[in-house]
Parts: sequence; C-alpha cells; structure tokens
Amino acid sequence: MAPGALSQDSPAISAVHKGDQDIDLTSSALEHKLSNGAAAAAAPAKPQQLDASKLTYNLTKSPRPVPDEAHAFAGDETICSDHMITASWSAAAGWSAPELKPYGPLTLMPTASVLHYATECFEGLKVYRGHDGKLRLFRPDCNAARMLMSSTRISLPAFPPSELEKLVIALMAVDGPRWLPRDRPGAYLYLRPTIIGTNAQLGVQAPSKALLFVTASFMPRMDAPPGGMRLHTSPEDMVRAWVGGFGYAKVGANYGPSLLATAEARSRGFGQILWLYGPEGYCTEAGASNFFVVMRNAATGRAEIVTAPLDDRLILDGVTRRSALQLARERLAGEVDVVERRYTIDEVLQADAEGRLIESFASGTAYFICPISFIHHRGKDVKIGMGKDGKGGDITLKLKGWIGDIMYGNEQHPWGVVVPEEQ
Amino acid sequence: MAPGALSQDSPAISAVHKGDQDIDLTSSALEHKLSNGAAAAAAPAKPQQLDASKLTYNLTKSPRPVPDEAHAFAGDETICSDHMITASWSAAAGWSAPELKPYGPLTLMPTASVLHYATECFEGLKVYRGHDGKLRLFRPDCNAARMLMSSTRISLPAFPPSELEKLVIALMAVDGPRWLPRDRPGAYLYLRPTIIGTNAQLGVQAPSKALLFVTASFMPRMDAPPGGMRLHTSPEDMVRAWVGGFGYAKVGANYGPSLLATAEARSRGFGQILWLYGPEGYCTEAGASNFFVVMRNAATGRAEIVTAPLDDRLILDGVTRRSALQLARERLAGEVDVVERRYTIDEVLQADAEGRLIESFASGTAYFICPISFIHHRGKDVKIGMGKDGKGGDITLKLKGWIGDIMYGNEQHPWGVVVPEEQ
Repeated sequence: MAPGALSQDSPAISAVHKGDQDIDLTSSALEHKLSNGAAAAAAPAKPQQLDASKLTYNLTKSPRPVPDEAHAFAGDETICSDHMITASWSAAAGWSAPELKPYGPLTLMPTASVLHYATECFEGLKVYRGHDGKLRLFRPDCNAARMLMSSTRISLPAFPPSELEKLVIALMAVDGPRWLPRDRPGAYLYLRPTIIGTNAQLGVQAPSKALLFVTASFMPRMDAPPGGMRLHTSPEDMVRAWVGGFGYAKVGANYGPSLLATAEARSRGFGQILWLYGPEGYCTEAGASNFFVVMRNAATGRAEIVTAPLDDRLILDGVTRRSALQLARERLAGEVDVVERRYTIDEVLQADAEGRLIESFASGTAYFICPISFIHHRGKDVKIGMGKDGKGGDITLKLKGWIGDIMYGNEQHPWGVVVPEEQ
Repeated sequence: MAPGALSQDSPAISAVHKGDQDIDLTSSALEHKLSNGAAAAAAPAKPQQLDASKLTYNLTKSPRPVPDEAHAFAGDETICSDHMITASWSAAAGWSAPELKPYGPLTLMPTASVLHYATECFEGLKVYRGHDGKLRLFRPDCNAARMLMSSTRISLPAFPPSELEKLVIALMAVDGPRWLPRDRPGAYLYLRPTIIGTNAQLGVQAPSKALLFVTASFMPRMDAPPGGMRLHTSPEDMVRAWVGGFGYAKVGANYGPSLLATAEARSRGFGQILWLYGPEGYCTEAGASNFFVVMRNAATGRAEIVTAPLDDRLILDGVTRRSALQLARERLAGEVDVVERRYTIDEVLQADAEGRLIESFASGTAYFICPISFIHHRGKDVKIGMGKDGKGGDITLKLKGWIGDIMYGNEQHPWGVVVPEEQ
C-alpha cells in the first residue's frame, strides 16, 4: 500500500537484467554499501567521508545546572548534557563537517523518512568517572563497528567507525568535566549515537539524506533490582526476531514492536520478556538484553554459562555479553565452561527441576550485569538462586565485579579507553 | 543493550504476580489498549478522546503555487498541500483538540521515542478529483480502522477511527478545491495520516506522548510501468515478515529493513522484491503491495485469482486487495474463482511451465492495480502475459477499471465517499 517514489521508468530500471545469472541481493547490497564507504574513506573526493578532524565547536552560552542522581530522574524527560554532536549526510555530497553544539531540538519535515519507514539505528554506551579520577569509555570501538553494521542494514550511510569513536570522545572531553565531576567517582552518563533518515520524501526507498547525532544523558541504575529481575516468557503469538530478519542489528524496528508485550508484563509485576524463538522455545534475549543461565551439564556435571549463539543472527552481539564471555573463559577456566548454543526454555525448566540450575543474569549497557531471580513460563515458575547476600549468584557477581573494575579504573585494561579532558 | 527507563523498583513492578495463573500477554495488552480507547470515547472524562468536532483552523497567509503534474516531481522532496492536521496525545491528558494549520516542519527532541524505537505507524490513501467534478475518498473507513490496529500494535494511542476519518475529510475540504481543481478531473493527492511517539525519554518503553499528523501530497503515478512491473524474489537470507511478527500492521518497522534488498533489486532492473516466506517459499507481498496471480487450476482447469491469506498475519489487509477480491467475487463469478490461500513460488513456476499462468498484478494505494510482467527466481525467469495492448491482462484491467470508476465517480458506489467542499 505504501508508495515507492522510484517508479519503474527511472533510468536505473531500464538497465539490462543479466539473463539467468542468479543474484544474491542481500550480500551484494551490503557489499555495495560497505565498499562505497571504504572507497570514500580512502579517496577524499566526493562524496565526503565522515571526518572527526573537521569537528567545529559551538559552545553553549548558558550551561544548565547539573542535577545530582536523586534529581536526575524526577521528571519524565531524559536530561541531556549541555552539548550534542551532529553531522548531516546526503547521497550526493556525503558527510558534512560534524558540529559540537548546544543540546536542543531537531527540525524534521512531516515527510521525513525516519518518521514513516523506521530508517533509524542507534548505539548505547556509557562514560564512567573512575575511582582514579579519570573518565573512561568501555570498548567504544565495538559500539562504533556495530553502528556501521546497523546503519548499512537499515539503508543508512556508511562511515569509518573510528571517526564515530573520535566524535564520542570529543563530546565527553567537553561535557565530561562538568557533568561527571571528579568528586563523583562511580557516576556515569549514557551516550546515544543515532542515525536517522531525514529526506523529506514519502516513498519506500533508501534515504537520500541522514543525520547523525550523539547525546549524553543521565540514565537510572538498573543493574540491581530489589529481589532480582523477574522474567515472563514471550506470548506464543509474538516473536521478537527471526532467522532472516534483523534481530542482530540495533535498529528501531527491533524495539517498537516489542513494547506491547513488555508493558503488559510490567503491569503484572515482571521486569522483562524472555523472548523465545520457534516451536522449540529457544531462549534468545531478556527484554533488550542478552540472557544467560548458569547450569550444570546433565551428562558431565560440569557448570556451564549457557547463552544463545550469534550465528543465527537473532540476537544482538552485545558488548557486555562479549566481554563477560571472554572474561569467563580467561578467568573462570576450570570452574565453569562457556557454551554458546541454542537452548530451550524446557532445558532451563528441566535443569531447575533436577537441581542443576545455578544462576542466571542479563547483560547490556543499560542493565549492565543484572541478576535474574524468577522466570514464569506458561503456568510454571522457576525461582533462581541470588547468592548468599541476595545480590546475585557467585559467577554473576564475579563477572560484574571484573567488568566494573575495568570501567571505573580499578583495573587498568585495554577495554577502558581514557577520555582526555580539558583541565 | 538498550535501556528500559522503568526500573524494577517502580510501583507497578511490586504488584503481586498472580501465582501460576497463565497469562496471554499479547491478547491482554491489545484488549487493554482498545478498551481504554473505547471507554474514553464513551465517557468524555480525562483522558480526552480524539474529537474532530474540536478542530481549530489556522489558515495559511501565504498559499503556495500548485504545480502541475509535470512539475510536481521535478525536485527531490515531496510537495505537500498548504495545510496539515495535527493532534497531540499524552498518557495523562489524552488527545488535544486537533488543529488544521500551515504545512511545516515538526520539532522533536533528539531523545524522542520515534527516532530510536520506531514507535510510528501510518496510513496511505488518495483523494480523487472525479470526472463528475466531485472530490472523493475511497473507503477511508478501512484506512482509519487499520490505523487504529497499527497504532495499538506499536504501543501508540487508541482513538475512534471515525474521528480520524472526519479529520482527513476536513483537510481535503480546505485544500481540495485549490490543490485538486475541478478542471483537472482524474488528478489525485496522496493522504498520509501518521502517528509518532514524541516523549523525550530514552528507554525501551511504550510512548507517554504522541503526535498524530495528516498531510496531503503529490505522488507519481506508478500503476502502469512501461512493460509491466518486474519482480525479483527475496534473497534466501532475508525475510520481510514472519508468523508472530507484525507484517499485517502498517508500522515503520516493516519498511526500513526491506529497503536494502529493494534498492539492490532496482539497481539491477527490477521494480520490487517478491517476498517469499519459509523454506516452502510462500508468496506474500510484492514490495509493499499485495500480490496476485491468475492461473488455471491444474485439477479443475478453472481460472483462479490466487493471493496470500490474511490469517497468517504476514501481509497487510490492503484496501485495494479487499476491494479487488470483492469485485471479482461479485462481477467475475463463473469466469474466475477467488482463492485466498498459501501458495508457493514453485506453484507459480509450474503453472508457467504448464501454460496455466494467465496474468499477475500487485495492488496497493501507491501502485493501485499494477500489472506484473516478469518474475526472476533463483536462476529462472517467468514472463507473464500483459494482454493484447501490453497494458495488463484482461482480469487485471477489468478490476482496475471498476475500482477506478468508483474512485473517479464514473460509477456511484458506497465505497466512494464524497468530500464536501467549500465553494
């Protein structure tokens, strides 16, 4: 029913179809997007590539008061720092020089692509004020690389990920000192790089214009809900992502459709939906976080951290997920095995019934490493151990501690990237 | 990885979980949304319901020149009429009084829900200047009802569909006379009612604020591409919609993810993707249009119009689709049967090989009834008859003619809703 403004009599459509040669459209399309981006990066001709070295600074003349944590969440709106970074893109000209400027509203025509066709993708990462006084990002290269993947998947422009990383650092170099003051170690802000399709043109087609913006905002701590996170499995008639879809990309289209079931679950006392897949009921994600169970293998008796694999492309390749698995492999070898595989909710229920279910947690930037205490699945309840202090299982808390130490500078580690601050 | 601003220690989360009683979250959630909307419509207490009778008029002081069709598509941007209608909504207050005002940009905070989580839905319908001089909409009640379904599916607010229909009519009553002048019978504009989530709040949660807007714009004619529409079947690793998903709703999340494959197909000389589903390769939609084949039943020899069924909830319940099927049942009885069922691309190929494939077309508001001349599927080409004049098969053109006659007032029919115009 929706229009495609490119009608078939456009020049592109009169191109000769190459006989019976078969075409893998998806792979071809992604290669096109990525190689165009890479080519533009190599040769600085038109279209211009995203270039952090061209960043201009337009500093606010009226810096706003910085709330403390108690007041940061009093209102309905997300409180952002004084500045944001923007860069616009068009198919013809490429990327504009990025600009650091006062945080404020965007202007979009009612026909803008993003408002109709969900041409949007984003990233989420935090910036941490360390106990050593330094400001750090956690593996921002992972977020930048994933943003490139998400952007090309949703037909938004390519860019060199390292340039996005530099822009994020530039924003925090300016707003970090005041919004994450040195006398508040352990505080953080949430960074949200976003790209949206902005061309004012109705029609189901790839955007010809786009806007990149990066904001820094307060976000509540969600990693230690009293009593642990409570999950309700997804309704039988609702699937979050599917093989051949886009569950692995951080695009808006993965989120809006999940809100209905999530809101209902919350109104009934649950924290998140545990999204199952297929008639087998494979466990995929907990809300918008990765999901893990620690259980004893029925055959070997060995403890295993089990989580869904990436190769189905159903779930997000979470930075916290990746980090937790790597640290577990490095530091818990012999104590617990790491297993990335398909596993079903029935396996979890059976492990519980047989006393093999040890602990469970969700991971993500928002929820960090969050212990899970309860799963409800079609009439059955699973209660999961929360450790001796009720703050999470032993393995959950070890991983959380190690990653937190890297984020806040208690452990010097290559994953912690220090933001150079103006003094 | 994305945040859910509702942390688990909110009051709602401390609600008692009702033991082992099982919960159908999806049905419950939809019933909640719909009954809240209906209740508010019945009792005009807070929150306020959408009410077209409260429409205020803020007319432009600088009406813009109305282009002719030749100039309407010269630029990159969609040309809209002088006015648009907007109404804002909040969870607390409900709907504001709608406003008819000059067409112009929207202001959104960078943290607005729609820009991150695809909390957006839309409708597309046309307004036609009849050969009898009257202005008509085609079954706007169907679009309004579908918009309510889409809005609730994507966690946007409910509203009485009849009020949306009245607002659309009100916009055309003002802009119709100048933008579709009586001396241009056969001209049309494209109407785009849209709802977006506007709350300036990061976090994966249902929007607490929203904006409804309705624009009227020029749209190119796409129903008669020279030589017919050419389709390429979807890549094996890409699925448009899936059972348990939201393919039946007109939400942005159905469109953005499809753009990559579509752009690649267009660059290779095809008009649209024929989206297949499952390992069987069931035919679903052609681009963003419904897809039909007319073929002779192998067993009975009878001609059949075959199209995908609605009960899988994979495809859009198109207004043009519904109308074409009804007219075929009424007016082509005995000549051709109407069959809504799952059917595979292999069935289509086999019908072609056996000389049973008669014609094919796509239907939708943008493409109207558009003849299909060619399908490429994994190394195989199917050429489809385009009738004696090369403008489409006999059944395709009959249906197109009948529906067009209702749209443009050559046939008086209840589906053609006349817009009362100011003189």
